[in-house]
Amino acid sequence: MKKSIFYHAGCPVCVSAEHDILSLIGKDQVEVVHLGEERSRIPEAEKAGVKSVPALLTPNGHALHINFGASMADVKG
Amino acid sequence: MKKSIFYHAGCPVCVSAEHDILSLIGKDQVEVVHLGEERSRIPEAEKAGVKSVPALLTPNGHALHINFGASMADVKG
Repeated sequence: MKKSIFYHAGCPVCVSAEHDILSLIGKDQVEVVHLGEERSRIPEAEKAGVKSVPALLTPNGHALHINFGASMADVKG
Repeated sequence: MKKSIFYHAGCPVCVSAEHDILSLIGKDQVEVVHLGEERSRIPEAEKAGVKSVPALLTPNGHALHINFGASMADVKG
């Protein structure tokens, strides 16, 4: 199975959700991307429908926004 | 491990998220509760911090709101 991708920006809501998601889905099933540090991946996230972080992109391409840490506008700064 | 609980209300956003979550976490790891049909479980969900559906309550008691289908006020009607 393709991995899911967990997009976050280091915010407290993100860190808490990351911990929960990795423990539920399994650490090796999820690629974790910090959009504040890997800014080159922001366009890919937006194209996938990510509107806020934290968000989980499923292997079938659905963006699941989990709680609310920051909007993509905030992430882009 | 204790199961997670997926609270929903039958809305389209809920159905899509349910499909994704069950496929990611594993069907037998998640109890699915339709709050529109099991209204007696609304207080338990609210007490756990569920503010909107769909939401996933993790085994350690964190409420993860996934996208946005309806507020609990809407669910209560």
